[in-house]
Amino acid sequence: MAGFTYYTPTRVIFGKDTVDRAGELVKAAGGTKVLIHYGSDRVVKNGLLNRVKASLEQAGIAFVTLGGVVPNPHLSKVREGIELCRREGVDFLLPVGGGSVIDSAKAIAYALADPENDVWELYEHKRRARGCFPIGAIPTIAAAGSEMSDSSVITNEQTKEKRGYNDDLGRPLFAIMDPSLTLTLPDYQTEAGCADILMHTMERYFTNGDKLEITDALAEGLLRTVMHYAEILHADPGNYKAREEVMWAGSLAHNGLTGCGNTANDFASHRLEHELGGLYDVTHGAGLTAIWPAWARYVLKDCLPRFVRFALNVMQVEPQAADEETALRGIEAMEAFYHRIGMPTNLKELGIHPTEEEIAWLADSCAAAVGGHVGSAKSLDREDMANIYRLANA
Amino acid sequence: MAGFTYYTPTRVIFGKDTVDRAGELVKAAGGTKVLIHYGSDRVVKNGLLNRVKASLEQAGIAFVTLGGVVPNPHLSKVREGIELCRREGVDFLLPVGGGSVIDSAKAIAYALADPENDVWELYEHKRRARGCFPIGAIPTIAAAGSEMSDSSVITNEQTKEKRGYNDDLGRPLFAIMDPSLTLTLPDYQTEAGCADILMHTMERYFTNGDKLEITDALAEGLLRTVMHYAEILHADPGNYKAREEVMWAGSLAHNGLTGCGNTANDFASHRLEHELGGLYDVTHGAGLTAIWPAWARYVLKDCLPRFVRFALNVMQVEPQAADEETALRGIEAMEAFYHRIGMPTNLKELGIHPTEEEIAWLADSCAAAVGGHVGSAKSLDREDMANIYRLANA
Repeated sequence: MAGFTYYTPTRVIFGKDTVDRAGELVKAAGGTKVLIHYGSDRVVKNGLLNRVKASLEQAGIAFVTLGGVVPNPHLSKVREGIELCRREGVDFLLPVGGGSVIDSAKAIAYALADPENDVWELYEHKRRARGCFPIGAIPTIAAAGSEMSDSSVITNEQTKEKRGYNDDLGRPLFAIMDPSLTLTLPDYQTEAGCADILMHTMERYFTNGDKLEITDALAEGLLRTVMHYAEILHADPGNYKAREEVMWAGSLAHNGLTGCGNTANDFASHRLEHELGGLYDVTHGAGLTAIWPAWARYVLKDCLPRFVRFALNVMQVEPQAADEETALRGIEAMEAFYHRIGMPTNLKELGIHPTEEEIAWLADSCAAAVGGHVGSAKSLDREDMANIYRLANA
Repeated sequence: MAGFTYYTPTRVIFGKDTVDRAGELVKAAGGTKVLIHYGSDRVVKNGLLNRVKASLEQAGIAFVTLGGVVPNPHLSKVREGIELCRREGVDFLLPVGGGSVIDSAKAIAYALADPENDVWELYEHKRRARGCFPIGAIPTIAAAGSEMSDSSVITNEQTKEKRGYNDDLGRPLFAIMDPSLTLTLPDYQTEAGCADILMHTMERYFTNGDKLEITDALAEGLLRTVMHYAEILHADPGNYKAREEVMWAGSLAHNGLTGCGNTANDFASHRLEHELGGLYDVTHGAGLTAIWPAWARYVLKDCLPRFVRFALNVMQVEPQAADEETALRGIEAMEAFYHRIGMPTNLKELGIHPTEEEIAWLADSCAAAVGGHVGSAKSLDREDMANIYRLANA
């Protein structure tokens, strides 16, 4: 095993009503003027924004607000945030929302630390960030894991490009994780979130090259646990215990833990989904489950031992005479699970049906975004990408 | 579940030859004058100290050295380090050694940040630390997990008191984890280290009150993995893959991960062992395995569901008609494992045989150290402590 680095500096404050500690935590971190960044009016209507404001006021922290972040967050909103923060002298970012909101705050925070350069250049991978203003994340859905991760994904809505940038500088200073904030989420959002959590670990699991057994053991335990509670939440969305479980799993699935010592990550499914998100604005987690079965069947033979292990240890299928058959049973069991939680397993179930021209655009765009190739289970080129889109579209 | 905080800011640099990056990492952290702190002459003789010095020199970092830290590290050595660091203007601590060396460095680092107060007061729990000088840990054994933990244990050799102090301020800034440094460890040290790793997670596992299933899944995966590789190392000490596995597991077992969401920790076995360590200077991990079976049988009925779960999920014994019988099979399987890796399961096998008077001293000292009671599996008072020492002594 070649080695790895692991760095998760985010201070996690987990539990019911922890959201009321926002002001105290910003103050302890030295913040004086906060941008409360959010998405839909849901957080206004359900009183969450007022709770955050009250907490800041109690701690004597000034703030401005900027809502309207959309899923697949827009570069234009990032630019609006940058301008607002510069004008108002904001020195601390407090995103309250899903992964989109936290990712948008990260982009703003990178820009504030580097007034001379355009932030989109980071997402184009033309340069690295010079710094990042401090961020305290208040996630309202268990999904992206952005509250502990180094990752931020932004969509340039003019060019339809959805691009990610990863940097340890962007890891939030603290994360206030209050599972009760997720109790009223619509089922589709909840389950798309669970699918995203699973995929963050699966992207690290389905790879070739060296591994640590301890990392596999943690990854498999996480996957089994999330699948168990995802099904419980599908039947009983108000189950607080299940909300706790998937919320904490969501952070662990994407903070690096489940990939320590793995030679590579795959993240091809994510890259293929990014293009769908950019072009059709689909829900990220649902886009992932719509792509994964096609991807899995396409790369199966190039990463067979991992698919066999996944089938046995995670999906707990009976071993078959041929490894490939065992692996296929595992993929089928995963599809059955996706269906049980109401997630799509192909593009038709996702509600889109790209033309051959659109598939060409998606494959071109994906290949361009990854610099030609992506994936460790199988290194995919532009033709492979088109083939997987076609397979998912059949 | 009442909630939890999780905070592991230590940057982990893991892999072969990472030790040569010490200078670069100290420099990036802003250190200008380093104390290289170490234990026995082993690190001098095997060339490790020279590698660390060369790395610092290459980065233009000045340093002084202080060796002679012993297992169950002494307060007098801590005081010697404080004096040396103040005299030399040291601003960065670089412990190179086992948990004892890292713990000793933490004590020095607390003292340097607070010149007005005596550091032993922290370990007497009379006050909290005001700060902590930055620490970069280079562990040479997989065991204590001190390289990522908030914990430090020091022995006042005059009073024979072994006392711990926990503080997030003491978590090292970085940890250089090079498994190849552990390849030449004697078997007894290796296996005592594995026993310590297991116990750090078991102390969080055998508790009453709420739990997160995701935490249990991670804990059980970690325990099974460490037991597997501990046996491999007993037969094949030069197995680098196994060294990697237990080294990373050692950090995860004690950085807080395996206790997230658990209502309480137990740590009674640790506390009972601390007294043995203070009085007889036994190897910590071996002291733990010598105490644990007596502790387990003594508290079994008060924490039965956890012992049953441990027996089934970790020790993988066949379920018996009565839960208590299943639980007992789990304890017996653990004793058999301890024997297979050459660890003691009682005080006689540990090589000590306390008199009834000594047991009274041990129980008094332990009760005083914990303020009367310790434990979550069962809350132990002074009489319980004496009974467990007697049981282990039988």
